[in-house]
Amino acid sequence: MSNLRQLLPRRAVRPRDPRSVSVVDRHHADFDQPLTMRSGDVLERFRIGYETYGKLNADASNAILICHALSGDSHVAGYYTDDPAEKPGWWDEAVGPGKMFDTERYFVVCSNVLGGCRGSTGPASIAPDGKPYGLRFPLVTIADMVAAQARLADYLGIERWFAVAGGSMGGMQALQWAVDLPERVANVLFIASTPRSSTQNIAFNEIGRQAIYADPHWRNGDYYGQAVKPDAGLAVARMIGHITYMSEHSLEEKFGRNLQDHTEVKYTFDTEFAVESYLQYQGFKFTERFDANSYLYITKALDYYDVAQGYGTIYDALRGVLANFLVISFSSDWLYTDKQSRQLVEPLRRLKKEVEYHRVDATFGHDSFLVEVDKMAAIISRYLDKMWERRQRVGA
Amino acid sequence: MSNLRQLLPRRAVRPRDPRSVSVVDRHHADFDQPLTMRSGDVLERFRIGYETYGKLNADASNAILICHALSGDSHVAGYYTDDPAEKPGWWDEAVGPGKMFDTERYFVVCSNVLGGCRGSTGPASIAPDGKPYGLRFPLVTIADMVAAQARLADYLGIERWFAVAGGSMGGMQALQWAVDLPERVANVLFIASTPRSSTQNIAFNEIGRQAIYADPHWRNGDYYGQAVKPDAGLAVARMIGHITYMSEHSLEEKFGRNLQDHTEVKYTFDTEFAVESYLQYQGFKFTERFDANSYLYITKALDYYDVAQGYGTIYDALRGVLANFLVISFSSDWLYTDKQSRQLVEPLRRLKKEVEYHRVDATFGHDSFLVEVDKMAAIISRYLDKMWERRQRVGA
Repeated sequence: MSNLRQLLPRRAVRPRDPRSVSVVDRHHADFDQPLTMRSGDVLERFRIGYETYGKLNADASNAILICHALSGDSHVAGYYTDDPAEKPGWWDEAVGPGKMFDTERYFVVCSNVLGGCRGSTGPASIAPDGKPYGLRFPLVTIADMVAAQARLADYLGIERWFAVAGGSMGGMQALQWAVDLPERVANVLFIASTPRSSTQNIAFNEIGRQAIYADPHWRNGDYYGQAVKPDAGLAVARMIGHITYMSEHSLEEKFGRNLQDHTEVKYTFDTEFAVESYLQYQGFKFTERFDANSYLYITKALDYYDVAQGYGTIYDALRGVLANFLVISFSSDWLYTDKQSRQLVEPLRRLKKEVEYHRVDATFGHDSFLVEVDKMAAIISRYLDKMWERRQRVGA
Repeated sequence: MSNLRQLLPRRAVRPRDPRSVSVVDRHHADFDQPLTMRSGDVLERFRIGYETYGKLNADASNAILICHALSGDSHVAGYYTDDPAEKPGWWDEAVGPGKMFDTERYFVVCSNVLGGCRGSTGPASIAPDGKPYGLRFPLVTIADMVAAQARLADYLGIERWFAVAGGSMGGMQALQWAVDLPERVANVLFIASTPRSSTQNIAFNEIGRQAIYADPHWRNGDYYGQAVKPDAGLAVARMIGHITYMSEHSLEEKFGRNLQDHTEVKYTFDTEFAVESYLQYQGFKFTERFDANSYLYITKALDYYDVAQGYGTIYDALRGVLANFLVISFSSDWLYTDKQSRQLVEPLRRLKKEVEYHRVDATFGHDSFLVEVDKMAAIISRYLDKMWERRQRVGA
């Protein structure tokens, strides 16, 4: 009935992109100065997992921070091994020699978010008492993720990012850098994101959390070391998320009402339609690489995100911003809509900040920033070139 | 953490509508001629639960069948008791003396669908072997629901419906009446519906089913008589459904980012935002009146729905239709979109069928057909009046 543990992917082995950053290493940095979170809780020490691509120049002026989305991690580009079946990092098309984040010019950094489960400290990490945090881990906000990234920037010797860039939740982090640490970021690339989670955004996140809470193996977050993890709940949460990343059109184009591996309707609860199998597979695969508690924490961070929080209005929040902005939305994105992008663009313009805004025609919904990279490559390359030249000229 | 079993509703007791049909009775009819389902399975006997409002006239020419949606039932209008706290039927505003389905003129019937759990035979019913069917119940399609309703029409002495009307899944049934039994329906009222479940429609239904499958208390559908039912999974399924019934706008208007019963963000996993509490409540309430297996069966019926199924194209399916059509879509409905309504309107027009089509501006999304009744009342009243007059004139 439940076909979660279905077939493995039938992916052809594609030759590696000659412009790949090729084999990269995982890094981490440990910080033992306490971090006071927005909640008021204090994290005594934490680790940040990260990767870098390209070389930092002598005056550390060529550094770009890429911030990842809900289910992303620090592995943006390249491969860990020579295994020809290995998939590259999640934005491999975007980061590499000659690509839009050109590693021949820029030193690109990406770190796993605080609260995550891919190298940085989060609810699955061991607390000072020797046991996993579970729900004892403090609630994390986008601002806390940025504060942790700032420690990493200090550690790497980067006083000011040439750019902070991100799609989806990554865009929220990029924006928050400009708000919280205006001197430390020259350019913000805010892609398929929102300055404020909408009611519907919160609603979808809450349903995902409810799916995890409903799994008896979740055990109030205390499942580490148990034989069975709350994978069933996490898989459902992922499916709920996944449907918001695709457009109605792209689902229709990709699957239509095609049946799964059979030609006649079977009239059973076995998987009937191809789209069902696809969702099941997405849900199941996710449980192999993600921690359910981290999913809870990160969706809460998304919910809390309203750049105006703590300031009053968005104008108050943006007034002190020094960065220039590139804002990109995608026409078919119904998770973080073009309208939500404009909720950032309009106040920035009224405040006379420099902002370049593009609504890109794309059919893949929210996922467009991951799967229609070519559509934004020209925009981003041109923008970064322009800002790079300006920096050379005025030494800004 | 999981706040499903929260507060009871704080609903003011409203005085009853003086135009209510007032207290009504539940009825049922038992059928012992086998019903061959679209799957090829045969149901030896079945019961249909139904209600009626108004009086059937001498030549049985004033009968209207209302078909309910996924979570609906046969209790369209009125009350069962004199308890002032009792809520009326689900379309009480639409059915009653002087209302759009005017019970002073029409005899209005509504039956619970086959496969349901509100008076008609479904997976929770006792099979001939004395045990509940569970998943042994045959898969149900919209056409099977209609075939069962046709038995009820025979039983009630209704050869031909003056109209068959329905919103959402009810619209599918109304359409299927015109396709399968063209001589037996004069007018179809197809409201907030679709002639074909889209890929996204199927995707949302499948995620709801996965939430139920993931609940260990579901026990492959064999949970009847158990102390714990798969309510946790069913509640999540309902929440997923519910979000598709509301528009982004109506969620924003109703809840925004309002906090639930507190003024400062708490930074805990307790319910933070009002919209979360609302969804939890909707999910929990649903488990009090609905059977998880019925939810599985009915969502499968929705998935299978493509009026062209078995015919080739939608043109082939509609060619033999004799009914006139009133088609109403709602501008903010993103579950069954205006575009999907037009997928029915266009072929009907090309086939020279009589069709009146309205796209109603409404903000409540798919739920508009339930909560913005006043917006369609004039359209439906006028349409029914026109058709009623024509019938009187030509005796059609």
